[in-house]
Amino acid sequence: MKHPLTIGIAGLGTVGSGLLSLLEAHGARLSQTIGRKIVIGGVCARDRERARTLGIEALPWFDDAIELARAPGIDVFVELIGGDEGVPRAAVEAALKAKKHVVTANKALLAKHGATLAALAEANGVELNFEAAVAGGIPVIKTLREALAANEIQRIYGILNGTCNYILTKMQEDGRPFLSVLGEAQAKGYAEADPAFDIGGFDAAHKLTLLASLAFGTLPALDAVYVEGIQTISAADIEAADELGYRIKLLGVASRTPSGIEARVTPVLVPRNSAIAQVAGVTNCVAIDGDFAGSLMLIGPGAGARATASAVASDILDIAHGGVLPPFLTPVAQLRPHIRADLSQHQGAYYIRLSVVDKPGALASIAKRMGDQGVSLESLVQKKPKSGTALTLGAPPAPVILITHPTNERAIRSALAAIEQDGNVSERPQMIRIEKL
Amino acid sequence: MKHPLTIGIAGLGTVGSGLLSLLEAHGARLSQTIGRKIVIGGVCARDRERARTLGIEALPWFDDAIELARAPGIDVFVELIGGDEGVPRAAVEAALKAKKHVVTANKALLAKHGATLAALAEANGVELNFEAAVAGGIPVIKTLREALAANEIQRIYGILNGTCNYILTKMQEDGRPFLSVLGEAQAKGYAEADPAFDIGGFDAAHKLTLLASLAFGTLPALDAVYVEGIQTISAADIEAADELGYRIKLLGVASRTPSGIEARVTPVLVPRNSAIAQVAGVTNCVAIDGDFAGSLMLIGPGAGARATASAVASDILDIAHGGVLPPFLTPVAQLRPHIRADLSQHQGAYYIRLSVVDKPGALASIAKRMGDQGVSLESLVQKKPKSGTALTLGAPPAPVILITHPTNERAIRSALAAIEQDGNVSERPQMIRIEKL
Repeated sequence: MKHPLTIGIAGLGTVGSGLLSLLEAHGARLSQTIGRKIVIGGVCARDRERARTLGIEALPWFDDAIELARAPGIDVFVELIGGDEGVPRAAVEAALKAKKHVVTANKALLAKHGATLAALAEANGVELNFEAAVAGGIPVIKTLREALAANEIQRIYGILNGTCNYILTKMQEDGRPFLSVLGEAQAKGYAEADPAFDIGGFDAAHKLTLLASLAFGTLPALDAVYVEGIQTISAADIEAADELGYRIKLLGVASRTPSGIEARVTPVLVPRNSAIAQVAGVTNCVAIDGDFAGSLMLIGPGAGARATASAVASDILDIAHGGVLPPFLTPVAQLRPHIRADLSQHQGAYYIRLSVVDKPGALASIAKRMGDQGVSLESLVQKKPKSGTALTLGAPPAPVILITHPTNERAIRSALAAIEQDGNVSERPQMIRIEKL
Repeated sequence: MKHPLTIGIAGLGTVGSGLLSLLEAHGARLSQTIGRKIVIGGVCARDRERARTLGIEALPWFDDAIELARAPGIDVFVELIGGDEGVPRAAVEAALKAKKHVVTANKALLAKHGATLAALAEANGVELNFEAAVAGGIPVIKTLREALAANEIQRIYGILNGTCNYILTKMQEDGRPFLSVLGEAQAKGYAEADPAFDIGGFDAAHKLTLLASLAFGTLPALDAVYVEGIQTISAADIEAADELGYRIKLLGVASRTPSGIEARVTPVLVPRNSAIAQVAGVTNCVAIDGDFAGSLMLIGPGAGARATASAVASDILDIAHGGVLPPFLTPVAQLRPHIRADLSQHQGAYYIRLSVVDKPGALASIAKRMGDQGVSLESLVQKKPKSGTALTLGAPPAPVILITHPTNERAIRSALAAIEQDGNVSERPQMIRIEKL
């Protein structure tokens, strides 16, 4: 047997506890399989009581994560604290400088400081592995860094936030409005008390940042991701999309375009009979288009103690097997700058929902505004206003659903701005991109 | 830069040509990324003319694959000949004994001789990688060997043969019979002139053998796989399944049961709105249930020159990065025997199609035979016989579709045997398992 691999675990929250359960369940078998014992050489958490409740009070305890990161005898520092500055950042830096491998589930830290940390890891000849930082139990980092390494990736996209997907799925299944489902998700623990980070698309943007870097060999560029959340999606949109044969999903999409990388997290329409439309509830998925491998899709649990622990353990085992890969596959010095594509040049079809006021010529004027911008319509459906929803004394505004032929975003935005100014709609127009899969 | 990695390629058919295209397209970039040049040190094929048509006539040519496998200066022997005996087997053995790493796409060789070859690789401290042997461009071997290595796998299943899936998809979409679609698939090059290996489920059985070994840490056991092909699936089955909310797919399924491993390749019914039901045409998919990672599904191209070449290249890159893994993850000496579960103990629901003769009491007798075996029915639909299909002078037999509640296979087989003996059906009963996803 080779000498043992000694790990230090900082952070004993959900993922940290999951990792302890996994090592408890499979540690002995794994050690035998890989011919190398995996030993916990130290743990660290905010509250020492945590070690007792987890039954690991006999393990060496560290009050300070940075001290654990540097401790002699530790081969791998496992950072499960979370957060993009302060202690976790300092501890990861300290570990790398001390030539310890690092395994982390910290998407925020990597999306912000990934290039600096990768450079540190490369300079010190150690691994910085972060499978658990994106899409929990789905091995998408390994797939990009290793399985598809010989491909030029054209596009990567996916459902990267389980909270949003749960809410959209429930809105669809039960025909309920956003806020009601959000409340239920919070009660069930699927959404945080402050849900803005998930609902607003920011969590998915962090993950997309890492995926885009790996896929395109570019520097991580969180600020270059265009973000819209799901808070503007109404039950009316879900229903109208369904009638047209679509589902609404919050997708992160990064693709190569002639003018740069288009990276965005937005609600989009996808065909109801597509595989991605079947991805329901808190499940995540990632699709990758490679020039040789073709189109791959990976579906699985995007979060949770056990699935995330499985990803962390896979990173640890890779280190145990030896062989050092640059964190972003391409050595940092070779990573190209992320050139951001102009989203106003985005090409695609659009779903538009307008609350059209009851006024002669309103529809004709709307159609003309579209035509002026060269936007042609695939379909236009005027729906009967629901009784009881009118707040005005006159006839209630009628929802009109437009599906456009492919056009560009500048044209559609100009047309909608003009329509709004004309006073033919009583609410801000709803615009959702239709994703070409 | 590290010293170059020199590969020898035996076999210049579809996959071999695909690999040359890939190295032509991405070789220079890859060498730079991994800091190591990848050099083709020799090629070998049946017909030397092939090297000329591929524009590689300047590369060292070997008439004998075994000689190439042993050639000094070759670090990795890439076996793309195919076949489970003779030259490919001897060449792979020669390479391993000469301490060369081996990359192969040869599922037949590994399903039959995997344990022996893995032991050779381990004894010589080299890699034997076979990502391309199962499901083409889908990185399922890597996912099992590395990403899910810390999991106990409960079940692995998937659509492992593109030809069968193409035929079933077309039968579904066009409502055409099996033989008509098979002919079209042959004309399009999606099915071989002799389709028995694909259609009969044997190709999928070879792949399932390798997946089961990796998933359960057991010796590869091709003979332990129960195999049924799709040749018995009629347009009537596809139509009836559709009406009941199902699709028919040829699945390979291997699962742990209390009595051993149940490994089977059979047509099954899956719910129409499941992700696996959306996997259409020649696309493959593999689903894996891990105790920590949860349920993962990977979808992608299962064959083709480029996708398979992407998998071969990923295996070569893993070798370039260093670190040696046992071919079946668990060292061969630790692989347990594959204990075959008794399929007659299979638990599940069944779809049954009977051609019931027009005779008083026939249906009642059928229902009694089911009841005698403790099989209860979820639904029974008697369909109107299609006019013009009757070959008898009397009333034509009426198709009756039964869906059972979960039962075991012994009971259902006994009931069907009794029904057949009673003379109440004019054809052998059709029985298709309903897969619980």
